[in-house]
Amino acid sequence: MKREKISELTTNRLSVYLRCLNELAAAGIKTVSSQELAEQFNLNSAQIRKDLGYFGEFGVRGTGYYIEDLRADLTKILGLDKPHRVGIIGAGRLGTALANYNGLSKSNFSVVALFDNDPNKVGEHVGHDRIPVFDAKKIAKVVRDEQIDVAVIAVPARAAQRVLNQVMAAGVKAILNFAPAPLKARLGVKVRTVDLTTSLESLSYFLAQPSSALVTNGNGVPASRAEITQADQTTL
Amino acid sequence: MKREKISELTTNRLSVYLRCLNELAAAGIKTVSSQELAEQFNLNSAQIRKDLGYFGEFGVRGTGYYIEDLRADLTKILGLDKPHRVGIIGAGRLGTALANYNGLSKSNFSVVALFDNDPNKVGEHVGHDRIPVFDAKKIAKVVRDEQIDVAVIAVPARAAQRVLNQVMAAGVKAILNFAPAPLKARLGVKVRTVDLTTSLESLSYFLAQPSSALVTNGNGVPASRAEITQADQTTL
Repeated sequence: MKREKISELTTNRLSVYLRCLNELAAAGIKTVSSQELAEQFNLNSAQIRKDLGYFGEFGVRGTGYYIEDLRADLTKILGLDKPHRVGIIGAGRLGTALANYNGLSKSNFSVVALFDNDPNKVGEHVGHDRIPVFDAKKIAKVVRDEQIDVAVIAVPARAAQRVLNQVMAAGVKAILNFAPAPLKARLGVKVRTVDLTTSLESLSYFLAQPSSALVTNGNGVPASRAEITQADQTTL
Repeated sequence: MKREKISELTTNRLSVYLRCLNELAAAGIKTVSSQELAEQFNLNSAQIRKDLGYFGEFGVRGTGYYIEDLRADLTKILGLDKPHRVGIIGAGRLGTALANYNGLSKSNFSVVALFDNDPNKVGEHVGHDRIPVFDAKKIAKVVRDEQIDVAVIAVPARAAQRVLNQVMAAGVKAILNFAPAPLKARLGVKVRTVDLTTSLESLSYFLAQPSSALVTNGNGVPASRAEITQADQTTL
């Protein structure tokens, strides 16, 4: 295993493979080949074999992958066999929506605290899990007490770097950032930014291109822009 | 202008530059050099000059960029001078949170419709803008009536491809997908996926690496994993 060289794109794909395998398992299927997996979920079979190849030998010739075994292996590789405790900084619309969103509470991530600097919000409880809202000044103490290892930044862009500095100082090393701002993290800390504005604006850019109006279906000769787009979204 | 060759990473960065310029303009600043812009917002000045260079000559030697002019140019390049009408498919937690989220309603995107197949939700109105929830069967008609040009998919993974097919059939060419599923779009349609699960799982992977535990501050000799991470997040 040469873990040092694994790119984020590879681990992103492992995450997708795991969800595909979960669906197959839920349907009672026991084995699957890379070919079948690719066909059923719009993936690339050579890519699947290459990505898994970084971590060991998983397939059995003539049979493919044993779904239960591969799920267990991927779960371990992605560190999903250990629970993570999440703190959300910013108890505004986005922060509370995220606290309520099942996608977060599902699997091994549980939201245990929200933080805000609005005195009207501090002391409140959010959602059906009644997650407490703490004073943002107490991040260091609550991170320690609640053993928070993942922080979600859901504050306005202008406050994001300050909040990141606070959570890094509190010892948090993995941060999911929703603020539309490029942030500077120190070494050994991973910041993953989910930027909804940029995503929307890239769609706006696409719609503003002359070729997006020209291509109305997939039957004609594809415009070069359309080809790029197709490639973009299938590579994931 | 060689628009055909502009990558999504470039347009993503233009989107970030625009927001940085908006902040400077709000602070009453009139001109900025690529160097100053880079320093203030953790960007790369050579990259800024290169990205803008695809679209024309914007800087003035000795002065830098005129902020108002560059904002207007970037707004136009990104197609943000035209309004977009957004339909959200899925009126569950995520869909309604997105309908309420100001990030979406800000700028030139306005959410005009939600869709769901739950009869208890159809006919309801969501949020303070009282956005109507339509029957998912009526997507084609509502897209036409409401001139929807951007669709947001906020349904479970298993329903996502079917919903994408529906909105493509209705003529929508730009789709923001929140379902954790790789989707197949036809040529001339752009799908941008925002996958919260994958983002969280990549943080989990990072925390599971031995080196993430070793590097506790930026003063020691950096582990190679930490170096990769730093590079990851500053390239945006």
